[in-house]
Amino acid sequence: MTQMVDILLRGGTVVTMNDKYDVYEDGAVAILDDSIVAVGPTDEIVRDYAARETVDCTDSVIMPGLVNAHTHIPMTLMRGLNDDLRLDVWLGYLMPVEREFVTPDFVKLGARVACAEMIRSGVTSFADMFYYEEAIAEQVAEIGMRALLGQTILVFPAPDAETFEDALLLCRRFIEHWNGHPLIQPAVAPHAWYTATPELLLACADLARAFDVPLHTHVSETKLEADNSVNQNHMSVVTWLEQHGILDTKLLAAHCVHINEEDMFSLRRVGAGVAHCPSSNLKLASGIAPVAQMLKLGLKVGVGTDGPASNNDLDMVEEMRLASFIAKVATQDPTVLPARQTLEIATIGGARAMHMGHLTGSLEVGKRADIAVRDMRGIHNQPHFHNHPDAVYSRIVYSSKASDVAHVICNGRWLMRDQVLLTVDEDAAREAAIDVAAKIDAFVIERESSPYNKLVLLAGVQRLESFEVQVKMPVDDDRAVHEALSGESITVTSAAHYRQYDHYFIFDSGDQDAARLRYREDEFIGEDGEVTQVRTRLTLIGEGQREEFPNAVMLSRSRFLATADRSLRFYQEYFAPARELRVHKDRYRWHILYKATDFAINLDHVLEPELPGYFLEIKARTWSRSDAERKATLITELLGQFGLTLDQAERREYTEIAQSANTEREGARA
Amino acid sequence: MTQMVDILLRGGTVVTMNDKYDVYEDGAVAILDDSIVAVGPTDEIVRDYAARETVDCTDSVIMPGLVNAHTHIPMTLMRGLNDDLRLDVWLGYLMPVEREFVTPDFVKLGARVACAEMIRSGVTSFADMFYYEEAIAEQVAEIGMRALLGQTILVFPAPDAETFEDALLLCRRFIEHWNGHPLIQPAVAPHAWYTATPELLLACADLARAFDVPLHTHVSETKLEADNSVNQNHMSVVTWLEQHGILDTKLLAAHCVHINEEDMFSLRRVGAGVAHCPSSNLKLASGIAPVAQMLKLGLKVGVGTDGPASNNDLDMVEEMRLASFIAKVATQDPTVLPARQTLEIATIGGARAMHMGHLTGSLEVGKRADIAVRDMRGIHNQPHFHNHPDAVYSRIVYSSKASDVAHVICNGRWLMRDQVLLTVDEDAAREAAIDVAAKIDAFVIERESSPYNKLVLLAGVQRLESFEVQVKMPVDDDRAVHEALSGESITVTSAAHYRQYDHYFIFDSGDQDAARLRYREDEFIGEDGEVTQVRTRLTLIGEGQREEFPNAVMLSRSRFLATADRSLRFYQEYFAPARELRVHKDRYRWHILYKATDFAINLDHVLEPELPGYFLEIKARTWSRSDAERKATLITELLGQFGLTLDQAERREYTEIAQSANTEREGARA
Repeated sequence: MTQMVDILLRGGTVVTMNDKYDVYEDGAVAILDDSIVAVGPTDEIVRDYAARETVDCTDSVIMPGLVNAHTHIPMTLMRGLNDDLRLDVWLGYLMPVEREFVTPDFVKLGARVACAEMIRSGVTSFADMFYYEEAIAEQVAEIGMRALLGQTILVFPAPDAETFEDALLLCRRFIEHWNGHPLIQPAVAPHAWYTATPELLLACADLARAFDVPLHTHVSETKLEADNSVNQNHMSVVTWLEQHGILDTKLLAAHCVHINEEDMFSLRRVGAGVAHCPSSNLKLASGIAPVAQMLKLGLKVGVGTDGPASNNDLDMVEEMRLASFIAKVATQDPTVLPARQTLEIATIGGARAMHMGHLTGSLEVGKRADIAVRDMRGIHNQPHFHNHPDAVYSRIVYSSKASDVAHVICNGRWLMRDQVLLTVDEDAAREAAIDVAAKIDAFVIERESSPYNKLVLLAGVQRLESFEVQVKMPVDDDRAVHEALSGESITVTSAAHYRQYDHYFIFDSGDQDAARLRYREDEFIGEDGEVTQVRTRLTLIGEGQREEFPNAVMLSRSRFLATADRSLRFYQEYFAPARELRVHKDRYRWHILYKATDFAINLDHVLEPELPGYFLEIKARTWSRSDAERKATLITELLGQFGLTLDQAERREYTEIAQSANTEREGARA
Repeated sequence: MTQMVDILLRGGTVVTMNDKYDVYEDGAVAILDDSIVAVGPTDEIVRDYAARETVDCTDSVIMPGLVNAHTHIPMTLMRGLNDDLRLDVWLGYLMPVEREFVTPDFVKLGARVACAEMIRSGVTSFADMFYYEEAIAEQVAEIGMRALLGQTILVFPAPDAETFEDALLLCRRFIEHWNGHPLIQPAVAPHAWYTATPELLLACADLARAFDVPLHTHVSETKLEADNSVNQNHMSVVTWLEQHGILDTKLLAAHCVHINEEDMFSLRRVGAGVAHCPSSNLKLASGIAPVAQMLKLGLKVGVGTDGPASNNDLDMVEEMRLASFIAKVATQDPTVLPARQTLEIATIGGARAMHMGHLTGSLEVGKRADIAVRDMRGIHNQPHFHNHPDAVYSRIVYSSKASDVAHVICNGRWLMRDQVLLTVDEDAAREAAIDVAAKIDAFVIERESSPYNKLVLLAGVQRLESFEVQVKMPVDDDRAVHEALSGESITVTSAAHYRQYDHYFIFDSGDQDAARLRYREDEFIGEDGEVTQVRTRLTLIGEGQREEFPNAVMLSRSRFLATADRSLRFYQEYFAPARELRVHKDRYRWHILYKATDFAINLDHVLEPELPGYFLEIKARTWSRSDAERKATLITELLGQFGLTLDQAERREYTEIAQSANTEREGARA
């Protein structure tokens, strides 16, 4: 008595990747609805099952679909836009493009291109992290791939959320909408600890736990990041995340390049998954993750391509081969990460790392039918040896190519048959991608002549996101300020005195990231009034966004810093600004703690344009609207300490004051 | 007036890789006979040239064929035979296979498979090193690829030469036959310094200079090799090669993983080429070659796949991408080896490293027409950006695949058209390769139960090639030997005294590499007669070849050493030998110098089987027949020093003496 099934794949080498690593040299897989109902030798399966559709898989390998454990799929549309750059310079190019172009339509198109590419290389499941995951989910579900989709949460304004509260809300709605979907597993994706505040991390962990969904984040990708954590937090990245609740979630930790054994024990204890991204870690020179050690300790390790802007492809065959290669060279041991174990981390290992091991990653009865069939007839796969049971893994990992994949089935549905994609219109996606690329080209070419690009061409730049609450007040008596600072409620943590010579180049480029370039010379003044140190630097300042609060101003803008090692005259010629402005001032600067909160205080006497009296500035970095509101309230209290009230606040920046002073002067001359 | 040409490729993005890196976005290449006659914008070229055959290359890149600067092409037939092993264990598997299977027909078949694979990935030129290069040359010339073919020269017996004199002669004939061929450049290929003697290296350098042909050798591939050179030669590998004439040739140095700046200066001074092999160096855990530094110093660097048994493919697209990736991570600098420079070393750089830069590697008027056309429509290559002149290099290096190659032309001849190979019968090659693989499978399975494999499964083994001249003489008076050693003409460099308990397992496996396994316990005896140290080891000894000389015996055989950390009883059960034999003896051992030549002297008193008197053994390692003859003469002289003459020489080994003693004993019992 035979059972009727939907699809029967027969006559291929079935590589199950089950716990016993069963391989059937002439094997078959029976699929009913979305699931696998039988796996075994062809003769046994055909005896027990009849199928509506039977596919001959002679000379092919029938294996689990590959699992891409970390990527940013819409970045297909920025593939090869800029390569071979330092990360900060690269971001300087990329982020304005993202801000300009990333929309729901953009991410859907990028998802179509990415899914087409992944299906072609035999991938059926992946873990994404980007903006507008709602739109990505719609697209991916339509195409029919399995995915863990993480809605990105940042302290900075993002394409889909101005503040992190907005991002959290968006993420919550996304989870509510998609949780329980047969293909899409929504997830919370705080981008990384260094683009988060402690509150943000705690809120993300809470959200993930509330819905019992995975949390996807970048962990210790670069040495700089790991060093910064030790310097700033006095602990490793993993420990910092642990202290902020992130390890109490179903965690998928991407990269983990710079982690130590203690970190590994922490990750293992909580059953966290690690997404190892060889190409990206090599291409960006981040380092080689200690994967051999992770696996030895029993961590759940998967393999990911990372986004195609730093890879530049989504080819998991190449990625798993690379995982094996670099593990060997890093440990100086060619026996490390052998072919079978490598295929394991690229399939069931990745599924487990994504907390989806019960659904996918191996060919086992009861699991979803996520299957790739690789045609092994290509001359690059010849010949085949059979004297060793692991020879088939060698072929798959060390010689087969993405282009060998013939058929792909996901959740029991055909996605590719005989190398023809069935659920993505590849030609239309290509044409649309080319159109977007032409628009990005035009945008970038326009920027080529921008101050930003000129700055990049001249020197490496460092990007700083600036998101501040601040207030500026004219004060007549500077001594009152000095005195107030010695009061009991204020603790001064550092103090400096310098003369600041600012030279502003004003541009009319229309580039909101590059409104002004400041050439600043700081002369530090010692106790005896002597100049102790001179520092010169260039800062490209965006126009930014200004938001009025009842008792302060919140400003957000991007800044790009570069050391200035040439003369002012050189920069004047090189940048050819529309206008120039000078502001010289004498500045006392303090960092203080008030009610356990950091503030910076400037007491400025402006020498050019010559302005009477002093200006007191009180500033604090902030990350969210609620935090900004709290700090604005504290600023009001602080003003009271200085005997000031808000009604005389100066709304203008020094450049604006200088500009109007210039205008008055010119008016007087005329 | 238009000129008539044979082939005109038009409408593609022409990437010339000339000195100015000219790229023509809508470009064309005109080919007449074997050469390029024009390169430029399509509109200019079609104005000036008419063609017998015009090929539309829309959406494609027209570029130089890739150059694979180091490989061993017949090893396609051993692709995936054994992976994830230590080099010595891997060789233990591979070398018996080579000895059994490598014939002219085998290398021709391997060449067909390899050329098919290389043409498919857009390679037109390569540098090979293997045995029977004469046969490989015939095959490659017929297929129509350009190649530097190096006939391997070893001190050990090789599949095509018993001694290095034979190998040199073979190489000379090969050069005489092929030098001047339009496609094939013969070369001298001493395998490596550590498989060579000084005489061999000098002879190879002489041969290469005599014919002005390149010399291709492995240089400093592993740290062990580099360390051994310093320990044995008191200098780096490069300096050792320099001292033995190798740098005075048109050198192509493969690998160069462990070289220092001084070595780089030496290689640069002589215009040597370096073949960088990323996959192989990673997969065998050899290390990462300092390619960034080599390029900075101006060395001629190419990229090679190495043999497909240690890669496991011949995919130069993957190889060049990897070259870029690992250079970045090794220097912790993502700007190192950017896409354009990476394509450069995979094309014109490789051609220059192979001393063929005047012929191939770039699309320039007057050069041979060695061209690959890559179809860039694949979804993994989407989209295309044009805002930066290097974007096309990014696409080729970071996202394109071997499977994108549509057409290949070499020396003006079509090798592949629309992904159809025109000069290799790929299906026939695949079938024949599968047949050979089945035979290798059977051979290896037979060996699976062999003592060798059992030894490998138990412990790592170390392979020693043994090639000795020796003589054994019964002596009555041991004091005469001790006295002779203090004579003036003999210098004793070391002396030891030990009791040697040998337990031989005799196998009837028919495996000539595994005739006997010796379990040996050495008890070292101090001055006071006390045991100072005990050493136990296993040695698997081949039957070897015995060649009678007028006054000595030359023996060559392979040995595999392993430490013995288990009991004799365990090994008896584990290896289950057909027979066992015991030889116990008291041995004095000296290393001496006689006429500036090293000899080992054993003075043995055999305790089991109990034999009367003593045996004197005189041994010397040798590498060639002429050297063996010289040492045999010196042995005769030495015998004179001990008051002995050759007529009483004992031809039998101790096992044979023991065996006949056993037989006699058993006969007496019966």
